[in-house]
Amino acid sequence: MTRQTFKRYLPILDWGRGYGRDALSNDLIAAVIVTIMLIPQSLAYALLAGLPPEAGLYASILPIILYAVFGTSRALAVGPVAVVSLMTAAAIGNVADQGTAGYAIAALTLAMLSGGILLLMGVFRLGFLANFLSHPVIAGFITASGVIIAASQLRHILGVDAHGHTLVEIAASLWARLGDTNPITLTIGALATGFLFWVRKGLKPLLRGLGMGARAADIATKAGPVAAVVATTLAVWVFGLADQGVAIVGTVPQSLPPLTLPSFDVGLIEALLIPALLISVIGFVESISVAQTLAAKKRQRIDPDQELIGLGAANMGAAFTGGYPVTGGFARSVVNFDAGAETPAAGAFTAIGLAIAALALTPLVFFLPKATLAATIIVAVLSLVDFSILGKTWRYSKADFTAVAATILLTLVFGVETGVSAGVILSIGLFLYKTSRPHIAEVGLVKGTEHFRNIHRHTVETHPSLLTIRIDESLYFANARYLEDYIYDRVVGDEAIRDVVLMCSAVNEIDMSALESLEAIMERLDGLGIRLHLSEVKGPVMDRLDKTHFLGELTGQVFLSQYVAMTTLAPAPDPSPIGIQPAAQ
Amino acid sequence: MTRQTFKRYLPILDWGRGYGRDALSNDLIAAVIVTIMLIPQSLAYALLAGLPPEAGLYASILPIILYAVFGTSRALAVGPVAVVSLMTAAAIGNVADQGTAGYAIAALTLAMLSGGILLLMGVFRLGFLANFLSHPVIAGFITASGVIIAASQLRHILGVDAHGHTLVEIAASLWARLGDTNPITLTIGALATGFLFWVRKGLKPLLRGLGMGARAADIATKAGPVAAVVATTLAVWVFGLADQGVAIVGTVPQSLPPLTLPSFDVGLIEALLIPALLISVIGFVESISVAQTLAAKKRQRIDPDQELIGLGAANMGAAFTGGYPVTGGFARSVVNFDAGAETPAAGAFTAIGLAIAALALTPLVFFLPKATLAATIIVAVLSLVDFSILGKTWRYSKADFTAVAATILLTLVFGVETGVSAGVILSIGLFLYKTSRPHIAEVGLVKGTEHFRNIHRHTVETHPSLLTIRIDESLYFANARYLEDYIYDRVVGDEAIRDVVLMCSAVNEIDMSALESLEAIMERLDGLGIRLHLSEVKGPVMDRLDKTHFLGELTGQVFLSQYVAMTTLAPAPDPSPIGIQPAAQ
Repeated sequence: MTRQTFKRYLPILDWGRGYGRDALSNDLIAAVIVTIMLIPQSLAYALLAGLPPEAGLYASILPIILYAVFGTSRALAVGPVAVVSLMTAAAIGNVADQGTAGYAIAALTLAMLSGGILLLMGVFRLGFLANFLSHPVIAGFITASGVIIAASQLRHILGVDAHGHTLVEIAASLWARLGDTNPITLTIGALATGFLFWVRKGLKPLLRGLGMGARAADIATKAGPVAAVVATTLAVWVFGLADQGVAIVGTVPQSLPPLTLPSFDVGLIEALLIPALLISVIGFVESISVAQTLAAKKRQRIDPDQELIGLGAANMGAAFTGGYPVTGGFARSVVNFDAGAETPAAGAFTAIGLAIAALALTPLVFFLPKATLAATIIVAVLSLVDFSILGKTWRYSKADFTAVAATILLTLVFGVETGVSAGVILSIGLFLYKTSRPHIAEVGLVKGTEHFRNIHRHTVETHPSLLTIRIDESLYFANARYLEDYIYDRVVGDEAIRDVVLMCSAVNEIDMSALESLEAIMERLDGLGIRLHLSEVKGPVMDRLDKTHFLGELTGQVFLSQYVAMTTLAPAPDPSPIGIQPAAQ
Repeated sequence: MTRQTFKRYLPILDWGRGYGRDALSNDLIAAVIVTIMLIPQSLAYALLAGLPPEAGLYASILPIILYAVFGTSRALAVGPVAVVSLMTAAAIGNVADQGTAGYAIAALTLAMLSGGILLLMGVFRLGFLANFLSHPVIAGFITASGVIIAASQLRHILGVDAHGHTLVEIAASLWARLGDTNPITLTIGALATGFLFWVRKGLKPLLRGLGMGARAADIATKAGPVAAVVATTLAVWVFGLADQGVAIVGTVPQSLPPLTLPSFDVGLIEALLIPALLISVIGFVESISVAQTLAAKKRQRIDPDQELIGLGAANMGAAFTGGYPVTGGFARSVVNFDAGAETPAAGAFTAIGLAIAALALTPLVFFLPKATLAATIIVAVLSLVDFSILGKTWRYSKADFTAVAATILLTLVFGVETGVSAGVILSIGLFLYKTSRPHIAEVGLVKGTEHFRNIHRHTVETHPSLLTIRIDESLYFANARYLEDYIYDRVVGDEAIRDVVLMCSAVNEIDMSALESLEAIMERLDGLGIRLHLSEVKGPVMDRLDKTHFLGELTGQVFLSQYVAMTTLAPAPDPSPIGIQPAAQ
């Protein structure tokens, strides 16, 4: 293995070499801030995933260190995130009951499978697959997931025993148990939620008004959840509210992350494989977007394929140390970045902070009400909910709108896996549908130029014996027959046509099926006494046509430019003068 | 319902109106010839589908009549065909055992489902879906199916009890029972096969040499199977070979097609739905190709959506009259056309001929050896086997080659359903992969023209402060990030660049994801002090961009043509002279 290959797989060799005192102190400060923020968040997301609270801490320790070694982003903070926690709950809920040992083992197995899939994608450089999740589908999916997550946490705010993985299930379940609402729990939950919303909206302007710096105010705002945790824990302890039915976190073991073993049961692996794939891809997309956004601010580069390896290693770490699937989180990464983290070492220091918390501080959260954790989740995810993507896509493109609307609707009604799968399949299907019925324009010469445009949109010169057709799509199996039909229909009633030119400036590929269609078109035109020409064929397409008999058998010529084609086939001083087509619009 | 709608759904109103004596006599002659050819073929294909021989006759009677009423092709002959018979055997083999009542009912149910799917596709005008089967995938599938069919018939030639739906299963099964070979059966089978091959290759030249007309010689050649049937049946009867282990057709009921009822069992329908879908699409593709080839010879038009309705009605007819899935067959349609059929009435007369055969002639085939039927199938399908598609696609396009090679291999090893599904998915996947990493060319002005070409392929003029990039693909979610990366990598090290022009002559679509990428590109370039321009944006793309904020925020301009962009941004009499790029190749 060469030094270069080493460096590709171990980015730590790159930044670790020049690591100095300045970077160290910046990284340490960022680590302290992030650690404080992550403690309640990790507990809360574990709750969302249906796991014991410590799983959230464990999932943040070894994974962060492994990402620091293998990842390429300088500021990404890896750990449990909202959407992946929800997807984990949905996936495991199908194979085990919450609270059982099987449930926790299934979570480890899911992390192992996700890790394996990410590592394989990284080694085989399949990061581009994530591009098939279109932006609107992602936006719709995140919005719908945010709604489901917020709804799922209402049971903790109300203090009732409801469940479900879709909005419909959750709403029905909550409705049926509304009578069991615990008023004290509801009070704590409502107060915490209100406080956190105020922190998010009102605290920063207040602090700024009091003269605090922008960055400090920002970071103080992120500490809001910690304040809520401390206040409500104290209230429950002091007033003995746990005895009055307020659900609390209870005993969390004081321990470093334990060594755990995922299951290698074939049936379980089969059942979790598709969910693991979806979690990997969604997690990767979320993580890479955050990483690229932060990197661009400092003109750094992210290597997507190496990111897959970093995230894969992190998930493998989670699988063997009592965690569950993790990825690079938006909120925590932004805090890390804003707090001044310079290298992945900040992540390693955060891991040490969380390890100390897991070892020493867990007794402190015994009286922490679950309602407070639910409140932190609700406030965090509602900032992800943004239905404006519906209006934006509606105005811009009905195809994008269809994909995003279907994603949102199906996610809400049938759950995360169905929703995101349907979104991907639908957006690919709509793209294929559009390319299968390409835009085809009849073009003419824009007067005084050598430029050709659509006869229905521009005032152009044409010639009755010459039909020029610009195909606005690559020619491939799905649209080959469409072109055959279009040309046949166009020429069959027009006796004047002697030459047909296919202007190929937008044809980026002619596959075998399309080549056979071109041969069919040429034969049919030949039967009508019409020659077929090509113009503006691109280099790569021409290279390929050169290998076939087609060019040899072509009844017409191949012209470098459409202008040459027109001057050759219909020279200006012609007995029948060139007609001027008025623009239709 | 208007008269026009009526005419769309009942093409018979169109040709039936002008039906005269000439057409009648031509149609009658064609019907007699086709009937003679169809009797052995129908029995043989039923055998291939694992059904009693009469099912083949029944599947040719009502379906032909229904197609005559609803179909648009003047010469298409509908009935059992080789590939669909094989697919039927594979589909039903999974849910019932051959020879049981359940097997026959499953065949009826499969026909009903295929009919339903075809009718729905026709009503919703989904005929274009068939275009997603690329030509090479179809060619590969037909070739592999031909091999499997020929192999599956060897058991009748050898007189052994073998089975299987893939080449591997069939070969293993035959090998294990090779010792049971019946020498008399083998002799009959080998002689019949040899005779039929000679008829196909040697008889026509011989008859032409004896002075027979081309068309008559052609039709006489098609009667070869009938001669083989008569000769071998007589031989078995006269020499009592059935007592020596030669498998014969035996008793075929003397009856018009019976009224039958498919099963409406939900489990069975679920199990057969995907096979029915594949059979519908494959059958439709085979049928429409034949219909269009024949129609083009007489300058007639085929309406693909109405064809779906015609074939759907035919399959529904098969389902309720003791048949199994049918489609327009290549061999029988060509014979029908060559024999002079002018209208679908020829098909109706053929149906009457076959009904008479089913009612009166079935005792004559009692002693017909199955080996003879197998021989007719083998000779017929081997003409479909053509591995040259592998070489053709290898030379032309590795993507097409991959799809066709996978289709052939998977069909042979895992069977027809896996093979054709994999072919379709792979060809779509490869298309998406290609469009996700588009060809991007840096272009310059071809001297003395207004034409821009790739700087690496042509001698062109460029300007150091102006980078012009031509993207040879529509911009959509799968390649939006690729473009981002390409531009960022290109400009980041080149200090001279002040203007980037995206030449959009090949950009047929910019979806929401790509629009967001363009905004990201613009922002990044702005940060580097570079303006972003667009040129040659097509009408439909421009219409859509006009609805967004993008054009308002654009740091540069939108130019009608690349030539205007260059003369505006880098006028010729410039302090730093325009460099001449030598062509690299």
